[in-house]
Amino acid sequence: MSEHIVSSFDQELEGLGRKIAEMGGLAEHMLSDAMDALSTLDTDLAQKVVAVDPRLDVLQREIEESAVLTIARRQPMAVDLREIVAAIRVSGDLERIGDLAKNIAKRTMNISTEPRVARAAIGLRHMSDIAAHQLKDVLDAYAQRDVERAHSVWARDGELDSLEDAVFRDLLTFMMEDPRNISFCTHLLFCSKNIERVGDHATNIAETVVYLATGESLPIERPKGRMVAAQ
Amino acid sequence: MSEHIVSSFDQELEGLGRKIAEMGGLAEHMLSDAMDALSTLDTDLAQKVVAVDPRLDVLQREIEESAVLTIARRQPMAVDLREIVAAIRVSGDLERIGDLAKNIAKRTMNISTEPRVARAAIGLRHMSDIAAHQLKDVLDAYAQRDVERAHSVWARDGELDSLEDAVFRDLLTFMMEDPRNISFCTHLLFCSKNIERVGDHATNIAETVVYLATGESLPIERPKGRMVAAQ
Repeated sequence: MSEHIVSSFDQELEGLGRKIAEMGGLAEHMLSDAMDALSTLDTDLAQKVVAVDPRLDVLQREIEESAVLTIARRQPMAVDLREIVAAIRVSGDLERIGDLAKNIAKRTMNISTEPRVARAAIGLRHMSDIAAHQLKDVLDAYAQRDVERAHSVWARDGELDSLEDAVFRDLLTFMMEDPRNISFCTHLLFCSKNIERVGDHATNIAETVVYLATGESLPIERPKGRMVAAQ
Repeated sequence: MSEHIVSSFDQELEGLGRKIAEMGGLAEHMLSDAMDALSTLDTDLAQKVVAVDPRLDVLQREIEESAVLTIARRQPMAVDLREIVAAIRVSGDLERIGDLAKNIAKRTMNISTEPRVARAAIGLRHMSDIAAHQLKDVLDAYAQRDVERAHSVWARDGELDSLEDAVFRDLLTFMMEDPRNISFCTHLLFCSKNIERVGDHATNIAETVVYLATGESLPIERPKGRMVAAQ
């Protein structure tokens, strides 16, 4: 392989890496803004989160397209091929995280005029702090090809599951206490599910980092902290 | 290109097609069984749905791996490349549909001992009939590369959205009528969201069929029947 070809290939990989970094930054911001909007019922901020989402969709399509073209053009083997497959997978997870943040923002717009149940949002904030932390960690793990860090993100996924179970029970209690809380708390139930799904996608990315570095897949069963609610 | 190479390539495509057909059949069965289990609160059947899911995960990984190897080996261009990208996308959507059916099955196991709200399940059955129909139609459209049929699946997605809104309102009403309905109906709310998401993935597959046949993407905005609930 001539130096010219190697360097073009590296450039293409770098291009993919830059786009994934952009997606990661956008997804982190969307999640953080969506949670702020939910906490303060700020519909303007929620609207901004929704408006960012198409950019994430476009980036994902671009990554998929250039990844496939790179495979067809360069016929990479082994670790180089894994790099590109990993880029496709990670971009898919980040696109989904953006969707989940968008969903939280849309719920915020729906409940902004309803009677508020302030204490109901506390557990969600705790969940989203953990999810944001998992996302940050796994993006760092991906950027640095850090298998150990990816492993610890993967091992921590159960935490968010158990927290979701607790939030689920709390929200049901608030609903049973006063029927006027039902609509508001129902929307929060969906938000908590969305946050828990962000954690799942962070875990997917962790699995991709391990696959990228080792060529191995992690066991299909994840460590679970879950007792009650289905995925 | 020699005949030998062309025919190997065709064989690889056929292999992908067979695996996708298997995934489609499994996903359809899982959805149908999950809804039967939910209607009758049959936990044995629900358990069977959960047990099938890993097969779908394995198939998806196999499709992704052999698709990528085929691209690297054959360097296909234009429509051939789209065939393979489409296989990757469709297998991702079918794997998610299996997950959603599994979620409904898990909810069934959670609520099997709770006081039942029989009328609450009627709207869900209606939703799942539509979703199953959309899934069947889009799998046929994919198998036959039938763009018109894919288009009509795509255009009908709003129906499921409006129905979900109606189910959402009904379930909230049942919860407000009697707090003892809250837990049961909450799980049904998540099931209705899962069914609506099945419709979304059928719509994704419809978009992939159009992309496959024409190389064009459909507009990002879909026809929406939605009034209230966020995605």
